[in-house]
Amino acid sequence: MTGTPLHADVAPLAFLLGTWVGEGKGSYPTIAPFAYGEEVRFWRVGKPFVAYAQRTWALDDGRPLHAESGYWRLTGDRVELVLAHPTGVAEVTEGLLDGTTIALASTSVTRTSSAKLVERLERDVRVVGDTLTYEVRMAAVGEAVQFHLSGELTRAARER
Amino acid sequence: MTGTPLHADVAPLAFLLGTWVGEGKGSYPTIAPFAYGEEVRFWRVGKPFVAYAQRTWALDDGRPLHAESGYWRLTGDRVELVLAHPTGVAEVTEGLLDGTTIALASTSVTRTSSAKLVERLERDVRVVGDTLTYEVRMAAVGEAVQFHLSGELTRAARER
Repeated sequence: MTGTPLHADVAPLAFLLGTWVGEGKGSYPTIAPFAYGEEVRFWRVGKPFVAYAQRTWALDDGRPLHAESGYWRLTGDRVELVLAHPTGVAEVTEGLLDGTTIALASTSVTRTSSAKLVERLERDVRVVGDTLTYEVRMAAVGEAVQFHLSGELTRAARER
Repeated sequence: MTGTPLHADVAPLAFLLGTWVGEGKGSYPTIAPFAYGEEVRFWRVGKPFVAYAQRTWALDDGRPLHAESGYWRLTGDRVELVLAHPTGVAEVTEGLLDGTTIALASTSVTRTSSAKLVERLERDVRVVGDTLTYEVRMAAVGEAVQFHLSGELTRAARER
């Protein structure tokens, strides 16, 4: 929402705002490695959080793959992230903000009856100028925490 | 995404699709009663879920109030809903689809360190033509499950 000020409580997260587009790659012991296109959007609504939505697509035919949406909160340098996944998973994740780097680890991962078991998610996000890189590590379906996703995105539009 | 077919797994939820606008009112023992404007959007992306985003605003000056976002899933007549709330709450909710009526109750409500305690959420959603009515009951901050929100929305745009 252009013109809506960023709430002071989340002002240190201003470096995230905007629409980011790029590519990522994923792997896990239970699936074939894959690559994807990705769009991530962080926006403000004038409240003490940053809204967030992400979607990915197959690089070959553009078919939709993953998506997730939620909200980023901040208390001092403590970042809190609440995410809904269409796989039936709800993620509550916390960690530290250090400049424009955020290191997060889930404090709870809950799920619907039909969802696959996800036990832990760890997320590192780093922004340098208009480049955002991230890595996601995951413990799921009985496997130990390990690399799952990484990507590099470029800020395509900056929220004014 | 116009043109993207609704996935067969969630075809019985087609009656939700579109953008809905209206008003609601809320109360709880710990807060003053309030009224709000509301926009709800249900959309499809070609995957086995319906994407969902909601936001509310004050009727007097339009300032943003609540928001939530997540995904609806369906297995037979079992509805699953995963929601992120900017209050730091993650909600996993399940229930039954009966025609165009859905009755849901949370199976888990988790939260970040700084969020207020929410113990249970119950949601009833009913669509008749282009009118959507809902009621939300909540147990939070030590109070028993009781009325929290109700609203009536009109379909302002139908996803084609």
